[in-house]
Amino acid sequence: MPDRRIPTAQVRRFLTTAFERLGLPTGDAATVADLMTEAEMQGSDGHGVIRLVPYARRIRAGGVNVRPDIRVVKEKAAMALLDGDNGMGHLVMKKAAEIAIAKARQCGIAWVGARLSNHAGPASLYPRMCLAHDMVGMYFAVGNANHLPPWGGLDMLLSTNPIAVAVPAGEEPPVVLDMATTVAAYGKVKAKAQRGESMPVGWMIDRQGQPLTDPKRAEQGFLMPIGGYKGYGLAMIVGLLAGTLNGAAMGSEVIDFNKDDTSVTNTGQAIVAIDPDAFGEVDEFKARVDKLVRELRASERMPGVDRIWMPGEQSHAKRLVNERDGLALPPALRQQLDQFASEMGIPPLQDH
Amino acid sequence: MPDRRIPTAQVRRFLTTAFERLGLPTGDAATVADLMTEAEMQGSDGHGVIRLVPYARRIRAGGVNVRPDIRVVKEKAAMALLDGDNGMGHLVMKKAAEIAIAKARQCGIAWVGARLSNHAGPASLYPRMCLAHDMVGMYFAVGNANHLPPWGGLDMLLSTNPIAVAVPAGEEPPVVLDMATTVAAYGKVKAKAQRGESMPVGWMIDRQGQPLTDPKRAEQGFLMPIGGYKGYGLAMIVGLLAGTLNGAAMGSEVIDFNKDDTSVTNTGQAIVAIDPDAFGEVDEFKARVDKLVRELRASERMPGVDRIWMPGEQSHAKRLVNERDGLALPPALRQQLDQFASEMGIPPLQDH
Repeated sequence: MPDRRIPTAQVRRFLTTAFERLGLPTGDAATVADLMTEAEMQGSDGHGVIRLVPYARRIRAGGVNVRPDIRVVKEKAAMALLDGDNGMGHLVMKKAAEIAIAKARQCGIAWVGARLSNHAGPASLYPRMCLAHDMVGMYFAVGNANHLPPWGGLDMLLSTNPIAVAVPAGEEPPVVLDMATTVAAYGKVKAKAQRGESMPVGWMIDRQGQPLTDPKRAEQGFLMPIGGYKGYGLAMIVGLLAGTLNGAAMGSEVIDFNKDDTSVTNTGQAIVAIDPDAFGEVDEFKARVDKLVRELRASERMPGVDRIWMPGEQSHAKRLVNERDGLALPPALRQQLDQFASEMGIPPLQDH
Repeated sequence: MPDRRIPTAQVRRFLTTAFERLGLPTGDAATVADLMTEAEMQGSDGHGVIRLVPYARRIRAGGVNVRPDIRVVKEKAAMALLDGDNGMGHLVMKKAAEIAIAKARQCGIAWVGARLSNHAGPASLYPRMCLAHDMVGMYFAVGNANHLPPWGGLDMLLSTNPIAVAVPAGEEPPVVLDMATTVAAYGKVKAKAQRGESMPVGWMIDRQGQPLTDPKRAEQGFLMPIGGYKGYGLAMIVGLLAGTLNGAAMGSEVIDFNKDDTSVTNTGQAIVAIDPDAFGEVDEFKARVDKLVRELRASERMPGVDRIWMPGEQSHAKRLVNERDGLALPPALRQQLDQFASEMGIPPLQDH
């Protein structure tokens, strides 16, 4: 039996009510609910509705400020630094994206960093906000748990610090890259463990530097950075840009939000907006993106490959289907949400 | 017998004379010579002195404009687009870096793109120019030969499009990442073939998607992007930012400069300067970078690992040694330079 699909509006309504009950002002609750639903719609299910319960646990423990005063603390023509006042990361980074877009319209490009932010969902949400303004968006973030040692080391001092970039196209879907700097995300390791499967060589190594393929032994090893020492360097650089530059946590300062519900995470993130209109005719730029996409897609394929995908194209297709047909939440997640609703004294998620 | 070391000033002088003889104005010849020597000093030998002969071949074939009018064609407060007029890439990107630094001082950040540029040596040269101004530099470039198909494809439509980022530190060496988006550079494959060695699994795949380990069969396969489809996405995105955004060549438009000496390459590159002074006290920022570097370096190590290196730290050490002791050019390269000098009617490279 397929999971029953739930209209996105119902999911949004449920999440909004939940965050209101948790103490967020209605507008902020709706913003967080919107972005979590958006994450679920594009297939980023590890960063979507499933996060409600851990977010709520942290909020109720006092680890997140539900009425933050998110404000610009440093500013120049093409940059701003936000103090997120320990609010939900979604609120901080939505505001950051709006400021970046407005400044980029004036200056051609703008960079907005944040400190004292929190987990903000999948990285791609924020650079994608630039697309509606025909702009390119880039995003860097410090992850909220360290799973990566420096190359050759054993102390987990780095996170999977993601990069996301969104580029508007003309008739084609936008090109949207959203990548962690490790070969596999930690969530994929947990999923392999749940299914009793082993991991491919290359996902993790043990403390001797040997391949680790048993996901039940994950605690004894480390995620592998992409390209080995290259991915280590990239994770460090992303952390310097999103964390250190903003005065946010980096290295040993990073709080593991899976294990600690109360310490201020001081999460750092950064968004860059680039206005192609400053470089030439925006329609010509979008036509050149289309041309490139079509050329790559039309490449001769390896045996057994049905289709060549662009970065973000599969998420785009999922978004369209889920918007039309509603969201298929797994039964275990539905049960968790029903239990949560009951505990919080709010109406359960309605199917229609 | 160790290679005889040649003072860097001699190498600079020789290269300057060579480029003057090739028709570059004296100042431009000295700039290109400086940057090629710098590349050699930091250990980027694949992008250093070894490039003189292929550069000269292209210049003499009329493929590069020796007296370019490098000019700003689009400009806003925090961005500029340069038309390189098909000049040497070193000249274009040095100018781009200078403009980016000046604009970032005003605006906090600036992005300068270039079209109609050419190969400019190792990516790290240009973001490193930001360090002397206590700024962070980022650099993106479209490579000058396509060695990479889209993920699952067979047509080589993408290059190893590099990313480089330079971050100033306080007492520690700056953190300088310089990475191609493939596991191995093509030059490393050629070196394995010359030595009759096989390649590790993961460097290349053949047209069936199987590992290719015989470097003599390299023409029948493709370089592997780092992290598989992630590196493919990253190579595409870097190309969109450095090429497509600037109206420079990307995808099938890229000219293979190993095979074609006369077509205008329309190379695209971009540099970003970020002023940490806009985000807070620059000395505090640099102290935080030092703290992170020391923390990562002090990590417990895997068995057999003598030292944990930061990105760019080995290049930094080489630069110091080579600056003091001179450059150890391989005998085969010395012979090539002597022959070149004789053909061009210029004095040969002097040892002291």
